[in-house]
Amino acid sequence: MQRQGILFVISAPSGAGKTTLCKQIIDFSPKLRQSVSFTTRPMRQGEIDGIDYHFVDVERFREMIAADAFVEWAQVHDNYYGTALQTLRQAGDDGQHVLLDIDFQGAAQLKKCADEAVFIFIAPPSLDELERRLRGRATDSDDVIIRRIENARGELQQARWYDYIVVNDNVDEAAAQLIAIMQAEMCRSRFVFPSIEEMLNP
Amino acid sequence: MQRQGILFVISAPSGAGKTTLCKQIIDFSPKLRQSVSFTTRPMRQGEIDGIDYHFVDVERFREMIAADAFVEWAQVHDNYYGTALQTLRQAGDDGQHVLLDIDFQGAAQLKKCADEAVFIFIAPPSLDELERRLRGRATDSDDVIIRRIENARGELQQARWYDYIVVNDNVDEAAAQLIAIMQAEMCRSRFVFPSIEEMLNP
Repeated sequence: MQRQGILFVISAPSGAGKTTLCKQIIDFSPKLRQSVSFTTRPMRQGEIDGIDYHFVDVERFREMIAADAFVEWAQVHDNYYGTALQTLRQAGDDGQHVLLDIDFQGAAQLKKCADEAVFIFIAPPSLDELERRLRGRATDSDDVIIRRIENARGELQQARWYDYIVVNDNVDEAAAQLIAIMQAEMCRSRFVFPSIEEMLNP
Repeated sequence: MQRQGILFVISAPSGAGKTTLCKQIIDFSPKLRQSVSFTTRPMRQGEIDGIDYHFVDVERFREMIAADAFVEWAQVHDNYYGTALQTLRQAGDDGQHVLLDIDFQGAAQLKKCADEAVFIFIAPPSLDELERRLRGRATDSDDVIIRRIENARGELQQARWYDYIVVNDNVDEAAAQLIAIMQAEMCRSRFVFPSIEEMLNP
């Protein structure tokens, strides 16, 4: 019996700690792997093309949009981000669970066509703490930080329609909550019941 | 802000290990406590009235049925079992989470009036293992064991409509899965979003 993999969709405002958390939980299950998105934003120090993102230029990204290559794409802070249909197809079918780290606009698009996916929102413990983390990161200018915090206010309103909200006050606790959500979703009746049926009708 | 407590409803065929598991997870959260059901079945060695069950005679149980005191009740293996409305009222309102250990007939009744409750089914890894455990328990006669296994076949079919199924192959792993389900349910948007709203509109 080959079970379908679960698609875990994770969004968060910039600075909520999503990237750190995703790295921490990706090791939890050998059957869990991270989906790699396409982006036009500049590569940051330490990032690797094909691992952190598929880095492409705006022209190539627009060609992919025109070719319907994306299940979702969005423009955020002047950059494009997108998830290729091909990336999700590779998972799911082989029973692998996929962690997809995308912005809430992308998640909203995905919600329409992949309702069985599990939507998780990572929230900062407060807006002050979010600002403190963004300033601590020291990669962004003051203008960018102010814009990110304004954006965060709107993004946090979107948390309402996600399945789960994890408040990232302490990174270890937040990671434990994310892992608990994944373990719980793997116990969903629709996944486990087929093995019960096999037990009753071997 | 006072959050509503969550009602976790747990069912299992006899011998699947439900009682052991419930004892193991009740210590997980100080905000989780076990609901005590009423029953007419004889008290077993080591059981305490008011802790394991409220033990009552058939006459008293029928009076309570007539007085609409139960949110659910059922007759199983010649004995009555029921959950008093009063027991569930005490929880929920004070933000405490409640673990309710009931038979699938009772769970089905409850499903109709408490759809926001979380329904968890504990399954044995196989019918052979279930029989081995029932014989190992040495509290039941051969006839009773054979009847319990026949009942288990029907009960396992009911697992389909539960929210979660935990296969109790290893008790520690099954307890970990139950705790993960509880942690995950406590991260549900409907519980966490009010705190996000408070963050945005202090």
